Amino acid sequence: MSKTAAQTMQAMTSRARAAQSELANASHDQRNQALSAAADLLRQQRAAILQANSRDLEAGKKAGLSDAFIDRLALDDARIEAMAKGLEDIISLPDPLGRELARWTVPSGLDIARVATSLGVIGIIYESRPNVTVDAAGLCIKSGNAAILRGGSDSFHSSSLLARLMADGLAAAGLSPDSVQIVDNPDRALVGAMLAAAGQIDVIIPRGGKSLVGRVQEEARVPVFAHLEGICHLYVAAGADQQEAAKIAVNAKMRRTGICGAAETLLIDQSIAAEMLPGIAAELLAAGCDLRGDAAACQLVPQMGEAVEEDWSAEYLAPILSVRLVSGIEQAIDHIRRYGSGHTESILTRDSALIARFLSEVDSAIVMANASTQFADGGEFGMGAEIGIATGRLHARGPVGAEQLTSFKYVVRGNGQTRP
Amino acid sequence: MSKTAAQTMQAMTSRARAAQSELANASHDQRNQALSAAADLLRQQRAAILQANSRDLEAGKKAGLSDAFIDRLALDDARIEAMAKGLEDIISLPDPLGRELARWTVPSGLDIARVATSLGVIGIIYESRPNVTVDAAGLCIKSGNAAILRGGSDSFHSSSLLARLMADGLAAAGLSPDSVQIVDNPDRALVGAMLAAAGQIDVIIPRGGKSLVGRVQEEARVPVFAHLEGICHLYVAAGADQQEAAKIAVNAKMRRTGICGAAETLLIDQSIAAEMLPGIAAELLAAGCDLRGDAAACQLVPQMGEAVEEDWSAEYLAPILSVRLVSGIEQAIDHIRRYGSGHTESILTRDSALIARFLSEVDSAIVMANASTQFADGGEFGMGAEIGIATGRLHARGPVGAEQLTSFKYVVRGNGQTRP
Repeated sequence: MSKTAAQTMQAMTSRARAAQSELANASHDQRNQALSAAADLLRQQRAAILQANSRDLEAGKKAGLSDAFIDRLALDDARIEAMAKGLEDIISLPDPLGRELARWTVPSGLDIARVATSLGVIGIIYESRPNVTVDAAGLCIKSGNAAILRGGSDSFHSSSLLARLMADGLAAAGLSPDSVQIVDNPDRALVGAMLAAAGQIDVIIPRGGKSLVGRVQEEARVPVFAHLEGICHLYVAAGADQQEAAKIAVNAKMRRTGICGAAETLLIDQSIAAEMLPGIAAELLAAGCDLRGDAAACQLVPQMGEAVEEDWSAEYLAPILSVRLVSGIEQAIDHIRRYGSGHTESILTRDSALIARFLSEVDSAIVMANASTQFADGGEFGMGAEIGIATGRLHARGPVGAEQLTSFKYVVRGNGQTRP
Repeated sequence: MSKTAAQTMQAMTSRARAAQSELANASHDQRNQALSAAADLLRQQRAAILQANSRDLEAGKKAGLSDAFIDRLALDDARIEAMAKGLEDIISLPDPLGRELARWTVPSGLDIARVATSLGVIGIIYESRPNVTVDAAGLCIKSGNAAILRGGSDSFHSSSLLARLMADGLAAAGLSPDSVQIVDNPDRALVGAMLAAAGQIDVIIPRGGKSLVGRVQEEARVPVFAHLEGICHLYVAAGADQQEAAKIAVNAKMRRTGICGAAETLLIDQSIAAEMLPGIAAELLAAGCDLRGDAAACQLVPQMGEAVEEDWSAEYLAPILSVRLVSGIEQAIDHIRRYGSGHTESILTRDSALIARFLSEVDSAIVMANASTQFADGGEFGMGAEIGIATGRLHARGPVGAEQLTSFKYVVRGNGQTRP
């Protein structure tokens, strides 16, 4: 009799739970040894990884997957080396566990410290990008968490082997391999079982496109760190430098159009639009960007298409930028509140009062002044590898790296105190 | 046509959302003015509050509610003054918003700060304790969050009036009263609508007994900060001082037996049990505590009843303590992992190696050495008022006060950076 999806998940998570409490109490050295052993294994097993990947690629081509999809799925020597190097970068991060986040003494004489701890068992659901297997498992090992991985079914052979190598790395360091497990069955019911595993899985991190993240947020009975979209805004306010604004706009939109930190909408103050927008638009157009403006913007830049209501909430992930004139910072903030996704917004101006107001009042995970929204990235923030960028307000917000995969506890040292 | 529960909740939360963004941007002074005005109103409206409370009390007595229930429901001058004073204590806390939690510069030259922000709209579901209305709304106002309150239906008149006074306090400070709203309808379908209000309510905090919290955790589609139980352990390890252990055991169990920080199980090392347990047990028995031991403990203390398996996972909230002999710290930690609820555990010993291991390996919200578990309290931690104690690992853990009702965002200051 075949086990049900729920039973399979229960068995995996209970092994994960046992392994995780060992991992959480392992020294930083030992966790790093596991990562180092895994990096070595990735290099040693290069041929086997490429072979597993070629099975996925063949099936994918047969199934008619798009070129972009195949590109994300494909591994080569450089990509395997990049995964190994990624683990070594994680090794070099400081220990996220045991950090004393705060410490104080209270009148009763108790010495109280807030100390970082592991989170527990983390479920990661991702698409057919085999490297996520290694990144996610690596960050979990570093932070003393067990990982239950579920990769896209088109990357089944690649991801399964990579997960096994991560588990082998744990074993090589004398730790239970059960802290990294992958759902080794493409049955979608197992995703449902993960999403329903309240109490067994502590948090689920979906990493992928809108439909994956949407399904996870819709169905999960387990807490989720996720961002649905990155509808990022660039607000060119009175007091902006035109040349700098153009340079940042081109970078924020065009450096890479497919990432969540790419700008999707440019807001510009009416008072400076006539003077500055044509020049900024010219540089965007020259860079190959399609512009969709409101009526006032179109009047200033005839090459602009007309934006419709849907444009303001579109995450293009493409060389398209919507453009709107606003009466000032109030309307800009209102627009962002209404249409933004809480990811990243940037104000461009030299006016420090406008900057202060924007940074204070805009409630997105990342608010910037005079910088490209494409800096929204754990690596650029100096946080090392990231597992994604969270737009929710609970627990993790912004780039989710090893530190964000921790919780904390209170450590209270007394000398015989009883409570009056 | 009467609106459905979901429509009612939608209307409340959308008003709350609008009000909350104003509140979050109000100055600390203005938020404190609202609290101060509310404290004044509580004192001025004493007669009206007592009258509303007497309607609840009459109905409660008619319905045959228990004396303990009636006691929690009842207000008098002293309790009203305590609520007003509680608000003034919250005023004196530092501003939880805008705190710079970390700040650093990255190689690109960006100056990055992690800054505390409000959480959003908080749902609080509680039992018929009218004072929770004031405590919870007060902490929410302080931390820039909107509160959607739903008190027990037996406290309907009292809680509704108190919530209105809190909203009036907001209005007196020039802020929208919609940041404090109470579900003014005892229909239980509205609780369901709150629990289903994903995206409208950011987090739900249940405050009450096991069945309330259990229902919330079971049904909520909104993140929850909750603790189900406080099964707290006292571990008397080799190297403990007998007199101190007895004193702390009596305090941890008997000071107040009905609070979640009360100890429920005493673990003691075999090696010292013959010498110390009889003396410790004698003091507990003298204080009126009923003891339930495992076989080995019963042999040492004949007055002890025999514990059954259920005792190890019982939250007695009564003068009953289970007692078990353990072979050492390993078994003690295993016992806590298996039966504990992740709330508070304390080790009693002078052996610093044992203390270090216990504080490191026990993964509860609060771990203590040589202190009574009854110190598990936001006030005792110096955090001011608390809305409850969370035993989950996400976002809030341990006492949930004004600081724990915040999120954070990244504030990034550049001078024209584009990402290479």
